[in-house]
Amino acid sequence: MNVLIVYAHPEPRSLNGSLKDFAVKYLEDAGHAVQVSDLYAMGWKATLDADDRTDKPDGEPFSPGLDSKRAFEQGTQSADIAREQEKLRWADAMILQFPLWWFSMPAILKGWVERVYAYGFAYGVGEHSENHWGDRYGEGSMAGKRAMLAVTAGGWESHYGPRGVNGPIDDLLFPIQHGTLFYPGFEVLPPFVVYHTSHMDADRFAQACGELGQRLDNLWDTPPIAFRPQNAGAYEIPELTLKPDIAPGRSGFAAHIE
Amino acid sequence: MNVLIVYAHPEPRSLNGSLKDFAVKYLEDAGHAVQVSDLYAMGWKATLDADDRTDKPDGEPFSPGLDSKRAFEQGTQSADIAREQEKLRWADAMILQFPLWWFSMPAILKGWVERVYAYGFAYGVGEHSENHWGDRYGEGSMAGKRAMLAVTAGGWESHYGPRGVNGPIDDLLFPIQHGTLFYPGFEVLPPFVVYHTSHMDADRFAQACGELGQRLDNLWDTPPIAFRPQNAGAYEIPELTLKPDIAPGRSGFAAHIE
Repeated sequence: MNVLIVYAHPEPRSLNGSLKDFAVKYLEDAGHAVQVSDLYAMGWKATLDADDRTDKPDGEPFSPGLDSKRAFEQGTQSADIAREQEKLRWADAMILQFPLWWFSMPAILKGWVERVYAYGFAYGVGEHSENHWGDRYGEGSMAGKRAMLAVTAGGWESHYGPRGVNGPIDDLLFPIQHGTLFYPGFEVLPPFVVYHTSHMDADRFAQACGELGQRLDNLWDTPPIAFRPQNAGAYEIPELTLKPDIAPGRSGFAAHIE
Repeated sequence: MNVLIVYAHPEPRSLNGSLKDFAVKYLEDAGHAVQVSDLYAMGWKATLDADDRTDKPDGEPFSPGLDSKRAFEQGTQSADIAREQEKLRWADAMILQFPLWWFSMPAILKGWVERVYAYGFAYGVGEHSENHWGDRYGEGSMAGKRAMLAVTAGGWESHYGPRGVNGPIDDLLFPIQHGTLFYPGFEVLPPFVVYHTSHMDADRFAQACGELGQRLDNLWDTPPIAFRPQNAGAYEIPELTLKPDIAPGRSGFAAHIE
């Protein structure tokens, strides 16, 4: 199988760098093909702007959505964007490897999502009708592919627990897992998370690699997070609210998981 | 009072640009001093890396935390970072104005947080003891200041409602409001959100400005979101989990609001 690792850490000699290196070797040893988008090493342009379209008419206002759509349709996207989209088409699975900075992705990885996820590629696809609100949340260009987050966090596991001060890790990652992975159609596996990274030693690193190796062994048969598909009957359209008989009385992120 | 607006949109002739212009004029007309960090216009460097420290020793591994700490303590931060910190010291209130892209801040704004929020400035401050786990979540360098998000979203309000498919807006914004604003001590006001931005007209824009104006009038007396302070007795230390008698049986983001 083909695996794309999108990796965002400025220092190769870091825990994240080591985990990325481990994953590449482990997957290759198992016979998979691996490509790595090492965003810092690539000097990835993090900011979405008018330069992302090579034929932008002078003087016209820049629209993040519409200019992305035109450039995608007309083949006038910046070359770095088109290259990453090609890797996504090639991949059977994608792993996003990053340190949790301020409870989300590093800016450089957020900018990868913003720029690579063009209108017409990752959103704004499919028909909008009375029972179908675009190919998204379970449908879309990434349908049939799998995705997993591999995340490191400085805080303790309890700080990210159900009643931990930072908020539960599943909720913190929901905007990424549901909003950027399930949205264009990926099946999203439970995240791989290493906590308390300021106190790593050889034993804990070996343990982390052991756990990550298991997750990679099971990349193809781990049950994905059971996010509810948008167009399969659970949601009113076009309000896109859960129907009254679905998770009755519940609200919040967890209500969107079957 | 002094108000800092950190604004992240690539097109001045956008809804976000217009709302920012409105806010600046409105606040100035009311007698306040306003500074704007227009991140796109400034060409803000979005990616945190070793260049953020002007005296980085060659060959040493780069540590996002420790290098930030040393640069902050020794006055060897990149000048753009130090300038933004000075604006934060000056401000009585901060407004972050941005379009919600993939359910979070644009990368350029995320990179502002990552780089400006130095170790020793916005985190890693205060003592760690048996009843105090650093000055954070209600304490810290920004204590006494207020902050508010001003956000635009393409989707409908119902899509962001309690049972909407995107997840509730308060939960989507929790990692920002709790994790990056309350964390260093800001009092966080409820967000100002404009939905369904693809269908704006003169009437809806006038309505949005009217509502924003009201929010700016009440910037100093609106009750902040009642996030629970970390060191005031609600949390076990060092586990940082809610004590059993606090919001018993509840979990998730909402449990951290009194």
